[in-house]
Amino acid sequence: SCVFCQIVVGERAATIIHQDALVTAFRDINPQAPTHILIIPNEHIPGIAEIEEQHGDLVARMFATANHLAHSEGLSRGYRLVLNQGPLAGQSVFHLHLHLLGGRAMRWPPG
Amino acid sequence: SCVFCQIVVGERAATIIHQDALVTAFRDINPQAPTHILIIPNEHIPGIAEIEEQHGDLVARMFATANHLAHSEGLSRGYRLVLNQGPLAGQSVFHLHLHLLGGRAMRWPPG
Repeated sequence: SCVFCQIVVGERAATIIHQDALVTAFRDINPQAPTHILIIPNEHIPGIAEIEEQHGDLVARMFATANHLAHSEGLSRGYRLVLNQGPLAGQSVFHLHLHLLGGRAMRWPPG
Repeated sequence: SCVFCQIVVGERAATIIHQDALVTAFRDINPQAPTHILIIPNEHIPGIAEIEEQHGDLVARMFATANHLAHSEGLSRGYRLVLNQGPLAGQSVFHLHLHLLGGRAMRWPPG
Protein backbone atom coordinates (compact mmCIF):
# COMPACT_ATOMS: atom_id res chain seq x y z
CA SER A 1 0.00 0.00 0.00
CA CYS A 2 3.02 2.33 -0.09
CA VAL A 3 2.57 4.66 -3.07
CA PHE A 4 6.31 4.88 -3.74
CA CYS A 5 6.65 1.08 -3.73
CA GLN A 6 3.83 1.06 -6.30
CA ILE A 7 5.76 3.53 -8.48
CA VAL A 8 8.91 1.36 -8.27
CA VAL A 9 7.09 -1.69 -9.64
CA GLY A 10 5.02 0.23 -12.20
CA GLU A 11 1.65 -0.18 -10.47
CA ARG A 12 1.22 3.59 -10.14
CA ALA A 13 1.90 6.20 -12.81
CA ALA A 14 4.86 8.56 -12.43
CA THR A 15 7.24 10.41 -14.73
CA ILE A 16 10.20 8.11 -14.15
CA ILE A 17 13.46 9.54 -15.43
CA HIS A 18 15.91 6.97 -14.06
CA GLN A 19 15.67 3.44 -12.70
CA ASP A 20 18.35 0.89 -11.88
CA ALA A 21 18.74 -2.06 -9.52
CA LEU A 22 18.92 0.16 -6.42
CA VAL A 23 17.03 3.41 -7.03
CA THR A 24 14.17 5.02 -8.95
CA ALA A 25 13.89 8.74 -9.81
CA PHE A 26 10.71 10.53 -10.88
CA ARG A 27 9.32 14.05 -11.00
CA ASP A 28 7.51 15.41 -7.92
CA ILE A 29 3.81 15.89 -8.67
CA ASN A 30 3.86 19.20 -6.70
CA PRO A 31 7.08 20.76 -7.97
CA GLN A 32 8.59 23.53 -5.84
CA ALA A 33 11.19 24.58 -8.42
CA PRO A 34 11.63 24.26 -12.22
CA THR A 35 13.42 20.96 -11.53
CA HIS A 36 12.01 18.91 -8.65
CA ILE A 37 12.85 15.21 -8.73
CA LEU A 38 12.50 12.53 -6.06
CA ILE A 39 15.15 9.81 -5.82
CA ILE A 40 14.09 6.79 -3.80
CA PRO A 41 15.47 3.36 -2.93
CA ASN A 42 13.61 0.54 -4.67
CA GLU A 43 13.59 -1.21 -1.30
CA HIS A 44 11.03 0.06 1.21
CA ILE A 45 12.98 2.04 3.82
CA PRO A 46 10.70 4.33 5.86
CA GLY A 47 13.08 7.26 6.21
CA ILE A 48 16.60 8.55 6.68
CA ALA A 49 16.41 7.56 10.37
CA GLU A 50 16.73 3.92 9.23
CA ILE A 51 19.97 4.62 7.31
CA GLU A 52 23.00 3.15 9.02
CA GLU A 53 26.57 2.29 8.11
CA GLN A 54 25.63 -0.77 6.05
CA HIS A 55 23.62 1.31 3.57
CA GLY A 56 26.71 2.88 2.02
CA ASP A 57 26.17 1.49 -1.47
CA LEU A 58 22.55 2.64 -1.52
CA VAL A 59 23.09 6.20 -0.29
CA ALA A 60 26.12 6.67 -2.53
CA ARG A 61 23.96 5.56 -5.47
CA MET A 62 21.20 7.99 -4.44
CA PHE A 63 23.62 10.93 -4.38
CA ALA A 64 25.46 9.88 -7.54
CA THR A 65 22.06 9.68 -9.26
CA ALA A 66 21.16 13.16 -7.98
CA ASN A 67 24.41 14.51 -9.39
CA HIS A 68 23.92 12.85 -12.76
CA LEU A 69 20.33 14.11 -13.00
CA ALA A 70 21.43 17.62 -11.98
CA HIS A 71 23.85 17.51 -14.89
CA SER A 72 21.26 16.27 -17.39
CA GLU A 73 18.78 18.92 -16.12
CA GLY A 74 21.35 21.67 -16.73
CA LEU A 75 21.71 22.67 -13.08
CA SER A 76 25.39 23.64 -13.33
CA ARG A 77 24.82 26.81 -11.24
CA GLY A 78 23.53 24.88 -8.30
CA TYR A 79 20.93 22.63 -6.73
CA ARG A 80 19.61 21.72 -3.29
CA LEU A 81 19.10 18.24 -1.86
CA VAL A 82 16.60 17.79 0.98
CA LEU A 83 15.56 14.87 3.17
CA ASN A 84 12.63 15.17 5.59
CA GLN A 85 12.39 12.85 8.56
CA GLY A 86 9.14 12.77 10.51
CA PRO A 87 6.01 14.90 10.67
CA LEU A 88 7.66 18.05 12.10
CA ALA A 89 9.86 18.20 9.00
CA GLY A 90 6.89 17.68 6.71
CA GLN A 91 7.59 14.10 5.65
CA SER A 92 4.35 12.98 3.96
CA VAL A 93 5.30 9.64 2.38
CA PHE A 94 7.06 7.20 4.67
CA HIS A 95 9.33 5.71 2.03
CA LEU A 96 12.76 7.38 2.02
CA HIS A 97 13.01 10.03 -0.72
CA LEU A 98 15.70 12.54 -1.61
CA HIS A 99 14.39 15.81 -3.08
CA LEU A 100 16.50 17.36 -5.86
CA LEU A 101 15.51 21.00 -6.47
CA GLY A 102 17.03 23.43 -8.96
CA GLY A 103 16.47 25.89 -11.76
CA ARG A 104 15.92 28.88 -9.47
CA ALA A 105 17.76 30.60 -6.62
CA MET A 106 17.10 28.77 -3.37
CA ARG A 107 16.36 30.85 -0.25
CA TRP A 108 17.68 30.58 3.30
CA PRO A 109 16.51 29.24 5.72
CA PRO A 110 15.58 26.04 3.90
CA GLY A 111 11.98 26.11 5.06
CA SER B 1 42.80 28.21 3.78
CA CYS B 2 39.49 26.29 3.90
CA VAL B 3 37.72 27.30 7.12
CA PHE B 4 36.12 23.87 7.56
CA CYS B 5 39.48 22.11 7.12
CA GLN B 6 40.77 24.43 9.86
CA ILE B 7 37.90 23.37 12.15
CA VAL B 8 38.65 19.67 11.50
CA VAL B 9 42.27 20.04 12.66
CA GLY B 10 41.47 22.41 15.54
CA GLU B 11 43.03 25.53 14.03
CA ARG B 12 39.71 27.40 14.11
CA ALA B 13 37.23 27.50 16.99
CA ALA B 14 33.90 25.71 16.64
CA THR B 15 31.44 23.99 18.96
CA ILE B 16 32.35 20.45 17.95
CA ILE B 17 29.86 17.87 19.15
CA HIS B 18 31.17 14.78 17.35
CA GLN B 19 34.41 13.79 15.65
CA ASP B 20 35.66 10.43 14.39
CA ALA B 21 38.05 9.19 11.72
CA LEU B 22 35.74 10.20 8.86
CA VAL B 23 33.53 13.11 9.92
CA THR B 24 33.30 16.16 12.19
CA ALA B 25 30.05 17.74 13.45
CA PHE B 26 29.71 21.23 14.92
CA ARG B 27 27.01 23.84 15.50
CA ASP B 28 26.26 26.34 12.70
CA ILE B 29 27.31 29.86 13.74
CA ASN B 30 24.12 31.27 12.15
CA PRO B 31 21.51 28.76 13.34
CA GLN B 32 18.23 28.66 11.42
CA ALA B 33 16.45 26.40 13.91
CA PRO B 34 16.83 25.48 17.61
CA THR B 35 19.12 22.66 16.46
CA HIS B 36 21.34 23.46 13.48
CA ILE B 37 24.41 21.28 13.13
CA LEU B 38 26.84 20.85 10.23
CA ILE B 39 28.28 17.41 9.52
CA ILE B 40 31.35 17.44 7.27
CA PRO B 41 33.90 14.96 5.96
CA ASN B 42 37.33 15.41 7.52
CA GLU B 43 38.73 15.11 4.00
CA HIS B 44 38.37 18.21 1.82
CA ILE B 45 35.62 17.44 -0.71
CA PRO B 46 34.26 20.63 -2.33
CA GLY B 47 30.62 19.57 -2.54
CA ILE B 48 28.04 16.89 -3.14
CA ALA B 49 28.77 17.07 -6.88
CA GLU B 50 32.06 15.27 -6.15
CA ILE B 51 30.29 12.36 -4.39
CA GLU B 52 30.35 9.19 -6.46
CA GLU B 53 29.82 5.49 -5.87
CA GLN B 54 33.15 4.98 -4.10
CA HIS B 55 32.18 7.36 -1.26
CA GLY B 56 29.63 4.97 0.23
CA ASP B 57 31.35 4.56 3.58
CA LEU B 58 31.71 8.31 3.99
CA VAL B 59 28.14 9.30 3.10
CA ALA B 60 26.68 6.48 5.18
CA ARG B 61 28.75 7.72 8.13
CA MET B 62 27.53 11.30 7.54
CA PHE B 63 23.87 10.19 7.63
CA ALA B 64 24.34 7.78 10.53
CA THR B 65 25.97 10.65 12.44
CA ALA B 66 23.04 12.94 11.60
CA ASN B 67 20.62 10.31 12.91
CA HIS B 68 22.56 9.79 16.11
CA LEU B 69 22.82 13.54 16.75
CA ALA B 70 19.10 13.97 16.01
CA HIS B 71 18.47 11.40 18.72
CA SER B 72 20.78 13.07 21.25
CA GLU B 73 19.23 16.48 20.45
CA GLY B 74 15.74 15.11 21.15
CA LEU B 75 14.42 15.52 17.59
CA SER B 76 12.12 12.50 17.70
CA ARG B 77 9.28 14.43 16.01
CA GLY B 78 11.37 15.18 12.95
CA TYR B 79 14.34 16.88 11.34
CA ARG B 80 15.43 18.09 7.94
CA LEU B 81 18.74 17.39 6.20
CA VAL B 82 19.93 19.82 3.50
CA LEU B 83 22.87 19.88 1.10
CA ASN B 84 23.55 22.94 -1.07
CA GLN B 85 25.58 22.59 -4.25
CA GLY B 86 26.80 25.74 -5.96
CA PRO B 87 26.02 29.46 -5.69
CA LEU B 88 22.40 29.27 -6.90
CA ALA B 89 21.63 27.00 -3.95
CA GLY B 90 23.42 29.30 -1.52
CA GLN B 91 26.51 27.18 -0.89
CA SER B 92 28.90 29.55 0.89
CA VAL B 93 31.73 27.25 2.03
CA PHE B 94 33.11 24.93 -0.62
CA HIS B 95 33.78 22.01 1.70
CA LEU B 96 30.92 19.48 1.66
CA HIS B 97 28.56 19.97 4.62
CA LEU B 98 25.28 18.38 5.59
CA HIS B 99 22.87 20.66 7.46
CA LEU B 100 20.83 19.03 10.24
CA LEU B 101 17.91 21.26 11.30
CA GLY B 102 15.26 20.56 13.90
CA GLY B 103 13.40 21.70 16.97
CA ARG B 104 10.72 23.60 15.07
CA ALA B 105 8.23 22.84 12.30
CA MET B 106 9.94 23.10 8.91
CA ARG B 107 8.09 24.88 6.09
CA TRP B 108 7.61 23.94 2.43
CA PRO B 109 9.13 24.74 -0.02
CA PRO B 110 12.54 24.19 1.52
CA GLY B 111 13.82 27.65 0.62
